[in-house]
Amino acid sequence: MRKSKLQTMELNKVRVEDSFWNKYTRLVTKEIIPYQWKALNDAIPDAEKSHCMENFRVAAKETEGTFEGFVFQDTDLAKWLEAVAYSLSYEPNPKLEEVADEAIELVGRAQEENGYLDTYFSILYPGKQFCNLKEGHELYTAGHFMEAAVAYYKVTGKRRLLEIMEKEADLICQVFHTKEYENAVPGHEEVELALVKMAEVTGKNKYLQMAKDFVERRGCEPNYLRHEHEKETYIDVWHDVNMYRDAYGQNHLPVREQKTAEGHAVRAVYLYSGMADVAYGYGDESLFDACETLYNNIVEKRMYLTGGIGSSGILERFTTDYDLPNDRNYSESCASIGLAMFCRRMAQITGDAKYVDTMERALMNTVLSGIAMDGKSFFYVNPLEVWPDNCMDGTSLEHVKPVRQKWFGCACCPPNIARTLASLGEYLAFTGENELWINLLVGGRLEVTFSGKQVRVKMESQFPWEGSYDLSFDGEEAAEGVLYLRIPEYGQNPRITIDGESIAYTVEKGYAVLRQPWKNQKVSLRFDMPAQFVRANPRVRADIGKVAVVKGPLVYCLEQQDNGENLPGIWVDTKEPLQEVFDSELLGGVVKITAKGKRIQEQEWTGRKLYGTGKVSWKETTLTLVPYANWGNRIPGEMLVWMKELH
Amino acid sequence: MRKSKLQTMELNKVRVEDSFWNKYTRLVTKEIIPYQWKALNDAIPDAEKSHCMENFRVAAKETEGTFEGFVFQDTDLAKWLEAVAYSLSYEPNPKLEEVADEAIELVGRAQEENGYLDTYFSILYPGKQFCNLKEGHELYTAGHFMEAAVAYYKVTGKRRLLEIMEKEADLICQVFHTKEYENAVPGHEEVELALVKMAEVTGKNKYLQMAKDFVERRGCEPNYLRHEHEKETYIDVWHDVNMYRDAYGQNHLPVREQKTAEGHAVRAVYLYSGMADVAYGYGDESLFDACETLYNNIVEKRMYLTGGIGSSGILERFTTDYDLPNDRNYSESCASIGLAMFCRRMAQITGDAKYVDTMERALMNTVLSGIAMDGKSFFYVNPLEVWPDNCMDGTSLEHVKPVRQKWFGCACCPPNIARTLASLGEYLAFTGENELWINLLVGGRLEVTFSGKQVRVKMESQFPWEGSYDLSFDGEEAAEGVLYLRIPEYGQNPRITIDGESIAYTVEKGYAVLRQPWKNQKVSLRFDMPAQFVRANPRVRADIGKVAVVKGPLVYCLEQQDNGENLPGIWVDTKEPLQEVFDSELLGGVVKITAKGKRIQEQEWTGRKLYGTGKVSWKETTLTLVPYANWGNRIPGEMLVWMKELH
Repeated sequence: MRKSKLQTMELNKVRVEDSFWNKYTRLVTKEIIPYQWKALNDAIPDAEKSHCMENFRVAAKETEGTFEGFVFQDTDLAKWLEAVAYSLSYEPNPKLEEVADEAIELVGRAQEENGYLDTYFSILYPGKQFCNLKEGHELYTAGHFMEAAVAYYKVTGKRRLLEIMEKEADLICQVFHTKEYENAVPGHEEVELALVKMAEVTGKNKYLQMAKDFVERRGCEPNYLRHEHEKETYIDVWHDVNMYRDAYGQNHLPVREQKTAEGHAVRAVYLYSGMADVAYGYGDESLFDACETLYNNIVEKRMYLTGGIGSSGILERFTTDYDLPNDRNYSESCASIGLAMFCRRMAQITGDAKYVDTMERALMNTVLSGIAMDGKSFFYVNPLEVWPDNCMDGTSLEHVKPVRQKWFGCACCPPNIARTLASLGEYLAFTGENELWINLLVGGRLEVTFSGKQVRVKMESQFPWEGSYDLSFDGEEAAEGVLYLRIPEYGQNPRITIDGESIAYTVEKGYAVLRQPWKNQKVSLRFDMPAQFVRANPRVRADIGKVAVVKGPLVYCLEQQDNGENLPGIWVDTKEPLQEVFDSELLGGVVKITAKGKRIQEQEWTGRKLYGTGKVSWKETTLTLVPYANWGNRIPGEMLVWMKELH
Repeated sequence: MRKSKLQTMELNKVRVEDSFWNKYTRLVTKEIIPYQWKALNDAIPDAEKSHCMENFRVAAKETEGTFEGFVFQDTDLAKWLEAVAYSLSYEPNPKLEEVADEAIELVGRAQEENGYLDTYFSILYPGKQFCNLKEGHELYTAGHFMEAAVAYYKVTGKRRLLEIMEKEADLICQVFHTKEYENAVPGHEEVELALVKMAEVTGKNKYLQMAKDFVERRGCEPNYLRHEHEKETYIDVWHDVNMYRDAYGQNHLPVREQKTAEGHAVRAVYLYSGMADVAYGYGDESLFDACETLYNNIVEKRMYLTGGIGSSGILERFTTDYDLPNDRNYSESCASIGLAMFCRRMAQITGDAKYVDTMERALMNTVLSGIAMDGKSFFYVNPLEVWPDNCMDGTSLEHVKPVRQKWFGCACCPPNIARTLASLGEYLAFTGENELWINLLVGGRLEVTFSGKQVRVKMESQFPWEGSYDLSFDGEEAAEGVLYLRIPEYGQNPRITIDGESIAYTVEKGYAVLRQPWKNQKVSLRFDMPAQFVRANPRVRADIGKVAVVKGPLVYCLEQQDNGENLPGIWVDTKEPLQEVFDSELLGGVVKITAKGKRIQEQEWTGRKLYGTGKVSWKETTLTLVPYANWGNRIPGEMLVWMKELH
């Protein structure tokens, strides 16, 4: 761990202006935020109802009715508010801010006198609180509102939501240090990392302490969650007692003894994010080591090529090392968001670009796959192989949807994607003392302070289509500072020039280190990033004999629209070169990749029995691959990442 | 359809004496029946409790207590009694018969005054009946007891159980013709085929009529099952209202309009069996056509090479055409038993051996795989690819067990396998008017009546290890009759001799037809049946680029014990010949098959990242294959049927 962690950019000091990313980020204000506001208000025809805002009005006793939706329905509003806050930082919108202010006032009116805030329990069990930590999601909900409060305060300077959440955070700190709750932990982690944010903004150290206590208690005896249902006050939420597994909520071992990523994938990476925060906050090396061990287990043995995690549809969970089936996995959009959050924190406290490589993999493949290019429909589950015919409701593939859905009753992913895209600036770069750390090679602008002087920086990028990135300083006078420029692991033959002059540089943990008095220089990074075939560790049984195509961070896939039906009947010839061409008409402008291969002539089987000794022949074919992030944005059909390799 | 259907052998007129089958059939009396009796009485340590007999005692008010176990727990006893009945036909056992008689008396005492018999509802809802046809399983349970009653009566001549079940069958005929139940059908089919058996034994045509009515009502409007939960009398059994799908219980369309096999696989094939019975009983050609359409859909598009059916673990159901995943399928042992039952009926009413080919496939692979070679543990689910590490509880593979289980709380399969093995004689051969139809090439003895004369027949078989089958008549005087001898579809170059003399013969629907005055002749059938590579229709995405090895009806597989870990890392060379050798030490004596292939050298990846551009090399290897029926009888480990084919 570094002595002082790298800071994320304040969002009003960074702006994304990038031909790749703008396709998505511009959707945030243009489509997603207005669309999701409609969703929260049940105003989208033919979509599952959210009931979220109505629940707040019922809890505030401003309308009659009862609670509807999932127990964690409130968080849809929290994540929406967080996204709104981020968006206001780069696109002021007084009308939207007014809507958000009103929503925040409603939240305040729905809050209980003692600070408790959760419409599910306030409406259905008035006076009860924290009666089902396992699945009641109160602390998870509180966490999301804390994140929203911090974001809204930072961007707008308005304290109302922050005060609401301070009141609840104070309640949590009090309740969870009483005898009754002294061993209690959240069933779904999230509040840990949120409490750390609250501590940073308010300066109240007790919030950090509470986060630490939650982390330290986890998996220890007496195991509160395991025995919670024995309490007289227990309120059953999901008839879930028999299903409960300690590992599902990472509650099977003290966190320092956990060596493998287990259980519900979203819960896991939210916890690990909180662990990283606490480890840094207390300079706790053994806790940091635990984070590294868990990170390594994920990236070495339990992560898809796309940065997806969670191999099992049932319980949305990690399974076992190298178990990475391509068609029945969960790979929830939220889990990859959580992985990116965890990686960002690890990068902040280590200055090691390896975490950024993983963060980028998750963001640029699974998270983007989670949202349609029009911002109006979403994937919750992100498989690497889809045959729409067998994605049937009421089967082992019932969780897999071959087309994005407008909204979900359980709508954690859409607003989570929105807040992530809206806060891309926090992932893009970090700052240290007189240091600028460039993580993602994204075009845009930012401001940094070097030696007490404000320096404006402009970034221009051809990434991810080319390994071409320029960063120009624009200062009034020279300012001493260090530029840490990430050279991605996949960047071949990297070269850096300053104002066209080649320079020598050292590389520390994946970052080129450039130390100069900066004024008006232009730093240019170039590297080769040809499309490549990659293979998986052959312990990954699902991928043996198969290859995938990647270009830099982007994973590519076959779609039925370009390649016809029955994609598993294709073998790709890895001895033939991959061809790349930028197609401005395709998917808003992407590099399309073609490969040579053969495909089985399935019609030759016609008339034969289901099984027989016969063969069918192969025919040469040209394959067209598009970025996985963009799949499913044209005519619905089959999709395939891992292709059979011709030997 | 034939005018008169072929009859199954009476079990006291057929005896299996066969080196292959005796491994299993001898277990029925030696192990399975005593073991399962213990299970029914909760006397097996470390196994899930059945509580079955205790439920009957509670219902009979002979002990205090409540109902425990699944709603259909009673059927475990029914299937056990049916197996006992069959076993007594070829192995008299007065002590066992006494135990069975006592159990039958207990059943009688648990029966309600009006004939109703079901311990679940009698104990938990006294006075209630038929309040949840969808999942209450009362008619399913009644069906199994009717089958047991018919078997017990036929073998022992004792009428007690038959009388009990006549009383219940009469009740059913009465209740299900009242206004309230005039559209009602069973949620889980079974009683249809059982009522036909009852009609045959008792001569009461109303039972056949009731079976017909149940078949005809299915899927028609008003749809009783769809609306059953709206009835005031409805009793919730499985909190299942939201889960209910018409197609799950084949209740989505009138049966004549059903073109594809849908829903819960066991329910489906039990229904189709009843449909075939009713079609024959009423000479109903359009109903028979529906049976054929459904049969064709199964064998052409929805059946595993092993005769397994049911591609989805969730809801244990059929999915869509050509969706035959090898590792997450259900392929319940009971479903293959049901498929064999359906095929047997279709063969009986058509005299077409194609149904026997399928029946044999199901029996000799999936049904036998369902039971350990010591008769003491069982598979419920029969995948074609198993990696024990990922068969984890609480995941999408939670239904797959890598080792057979001692018993199940839901124990439909073990006693179902027992009754099937015990009644193998009913599958082995049929009789017609002066006709003997040999279906399965199994050694043993039987008696048949030709022209009014009793003829003894002895069968000697080297099958399935060799295509060698001899059938000797042993009559006092010559008797005119026709021998229909099945020539299996996989039999190459078949030749038949009588007393060593080659003869010419015609083949009708897969049976060689031999018409003679039979006295002491020996009929010999020889054919070649080398091990072969087979492929699947390339629309089966899971099997593209793969081959399996079969020898006659037997599917072979790789096991970890013979071939090491990571079986998907093996490619088989189909240009190299398969070698066969009988190994008397292996698995009680089986033909072992070896093949040439290559395997990936996975250790070369050591130290690399999870994904990368690197390759690993292959090494030549010799593969050892054993019958799928016998897998998992040695050291637990991986298993694989469909192997990658080297090109």
